[in-house]
Amino acid sequence: MKAEILAVGTELLMGQIANTNAQYISARLPDVGIGVYYHSVVGDNPERLKDELSNALSRSELVIMTGGLGPTKDDLTKETVADLLNRRLVPDQESLDRLKAFFDRLKRPMTENNIKQAYMPEGSIIIRNNNGTAPGCIIEERDNIVIMLPGPPSEMKAMFEETVIPYLDERSESMIVSRFLRIFGIGESAMEEAIKDLIEDQSNPTLASYVKEGEIALRITARYPKDNTAEDIITPVEEEIKKRLGIKVYSSDNKGLDEVVAEMLLQTDATISIAESCTGGLISARLTEIPGISRIFNRGIISYSNQSKMENLNVKHKTLERFGAVSRETAIEMAAGIRKISGTDLGLAVTGIAGPDGGTPEKPVGLVYIALSHKDEVECKELRLWGARNRIRNVTSLHAFDMIRRKLINLEN
Amino acid sequence: MKAEILAVGTELLMGQIANTNAQYISARLPDVGIGVYYHSVVGDNPERLKDELSNALSRSELVIMTGGLGPTKDDLTKETVADLLNRRLVPDQESLDRLKAFFDRLKRPMTENNIKQAYMPEGSIIIRNNNGTAPGCIIEERDNIVIMLPGPPSEMKAMFEETVIPYLDERSESMIVSRFLRIFGIGESAMEEAIKDLIEDQSNPTLASYVKEGEIALRITARYPKDNTAEDIITPVEEEIKKRLGIKVYSSDNKGLDEVVAEMLLQTDATISIAESCTGGLISARLTEIPGISRIFNRGIISYSNQSKMENLNVKHKTLERFGAVSRETAIEMAAGIRKISGTDLGLAVTGIAGPDGGTPEKPVGLVYIALSHKDEVECKELRLWGARNRIRNVTSLHAFDMIRRKLINLEN
Repeated sequence: MKAEILAVGTELLMGQIANTNAQYISARLPDVGIGVYYHSVVGDNPERLKDELSNALSRSELVIMTGGLGPTKDDLTKETVADLLNRRLVPDQESLDRLKAFFDRLKRPMTENNIKQAYMPEGSIIIRNNNGTAPGCIIEERDNIVIMLPGPPSEMKAMFEETVIPYLDERSESMIVSRFLRIFGIGESAMEEAIKDLIEDQSNPTLASYVKEGEIALRITARYPKDNTAEDIITPVEEEIKKRLGIKVYSSDNKGLDEVVAEMLLQTDATISIAESCTGGLISARLTEIPGISRIFNRGIISYSNQSKMENLNVKHKTLERFGAVSRETAIEMAAGIRKISGTDLGLAVTGIAGPDGGTPEKPVGLVYIALSHKDEVECKELRLWGARNRIRNVTSLHAFDMIRRKLINLEN
Repeated sequence: MKAEILAVGTELLMGQIANTNAQYISARLPDVGIGVYYHSVVGDNPERLKDELSNALSRSELVIMTGGLGPTKDDLTKETVADLLNRRLVPDQESLDRLKAFFDRLKRPMTENNIKQAYMPEGSIIIRNNNGTAPGCIIEERDNIVIMLPGPPSEMKAMFEETVIPYLDERSESMIVSRFLRIFGIGESAMEEAIKDLIEDQSNPTLASYVKEGEIALRITARYPKDNTAEDIITPVEEEIKKRLGIKVYSSDNKGLDEVVAEMLLQTDATISIAESCTGGLISARLTEIPGISRIFNRGIISYSNQSKMENLNVKHKTLERFGAVSRETAIEMAAGIRKISGTDLGLAVTGIAGPDGGTPEKPVGLVYIALSHKDEVECKELRLWGARNRIRNVTSLHAFDMIRRKLINLEN
């Protein structure tokens, strides 16, 4: 099935946000055997929307629309589509009930313009919205399927996964499966050199790499008939890549380093505590995105001041005076300190200069120390990173997670 | 001038990357008086590209294309455009020289397919690429201007700023300026009710709102002749909105709550320390994104365990036992504790149930307490939030920043 994605929203044409909805949907549709051939974006303008939609319907079986389902006057996707497809908008009782319940729960009054969100094109399949007020819908025409979803990504994604994917999966005959290997600790060209012959020899699966900040993702994509399995096609290639890149491949299912490490900690019941300076809570914030993490994460100390390093982590005044807050010695005492105070199996500490100010010739912006304490041992790694403040903070957190990952692998073996 | 942006690249249709080029260009074009009416994306396919480009040329004076200028066989933007516009591709000597110099500098051999990058549509204005190998170009037709830029954002942005913006600015007669008001503490429909007449009455400036997670952005856009100023058009409307929404408008320049609060803290030299439970370091991580914040941010304690709440924040065992970790009483002791220990002006504390597990009928997922301590006073706010774990954590952090903001405003008056 050929698909295209039509986004409605002046905020996209103004450059206020990127069209991440199109990206998300495009990445998911191949899983149900559907290829995406076009993306387009129009503003909140009924004439242009109507033209774009007519064009889309003439060339694509499936048109997925995002945005313009909200309560305001600008939101006219449903009205325009219904008009073009000669359908009336009729009230949907369940949507009305859910809207009322939503506002009751929030103890907020439901304004008149909210009610328009419960009016849906006649004969459409309603897509429930469990994270917001605007329902979506699926309209089946003779030659087309039109799907309307709201613009806010959290609402769109949930509705897409809960309703749209199962609906499309029922209708699909083939599948396109991609597996994403996530790789840390090697540059893109060095990696390409290592697996060049695999990239060149393959037509099914195909291989493509792309760079994310501080790491690499490698996509392996296979096409195969539904009810078969992609394993026979993908797995041999995947195994060969892992053989060549070794421990640098940290995930085969597109999970990030933070998630991989959180799962390893939970599986091995290894408790951890974290002391952060230059990352300012970023490592702890990422780790605690994972549900259930409170079982193994004891505490974090964001020791931005020397005072806090001494009081909360027992870093010696002499160490700070002699080597400075950004030093191997301080990092090691922070890691040992947080572990001892918390009584956890592992203690991680980070101290560095994230910039843009605060660098000196001896200790430039981008100098970072990461220390990991386990029992009576502390290992420490020095990094020299480049880039803006947020890049340095982000890449530091990747290195920290990778250090924990490698430690847990070593402990198991 | 009406413009649209046409991106070429299968990686966009596969969802590997978002179309951030379109976002960047869209945000910049209004500065030279150009409005963007469409975005579209096609894959590396000459037929579909030709159709899309024909369509674009028929409706938009200016078509800016990104992607498909590289050395590989997939890269066919130039070939397709030249074909459609009946222009030959001719070698450009300066581009050839620059290519050779580029490869000499990297000490890499220049492959045959690289030379194709120096072939440009006859009669076009060449756009030099100082950050990569593929030059771009501007083609002036009778009714259209077509601009081609490479896909990698760092190359595209530099060429756009260095060559395209000055080129377009010379041709423009008017400017479009937008001001973004950021609003917290009111729902979208309630806000629309409050300023309905303004939205309906205005044609210049225009008003449009959109929802971000937990908050609202309101855009005021004015068109005016070049060399004039937008102030006279935008400011009266902005003032009227601020009069009606009051303190809920927290920013007039599209800054986020975290940034606004960081700047207020730095300006007033108010020191702060933060104790986080359910947000797991997110509030501190956001605050410390701002350069120079170490001057006023003393420390953060991520007290995920009761042990840490007692040891690091002096929360009483009796309080935890009697009221639980997620309670008004615990939040208040956390805020008072972190402030006292750190010796800061302000102490913020958050405790709550982010889910998906851990909720009970009395204390459901989404129940959050935020406490703010200043001198001997502590104020505490109870929230009942909905949605997934990350939404709850994010919206909690917005409420926390808003509480600090309101406190700082009160202290000043």
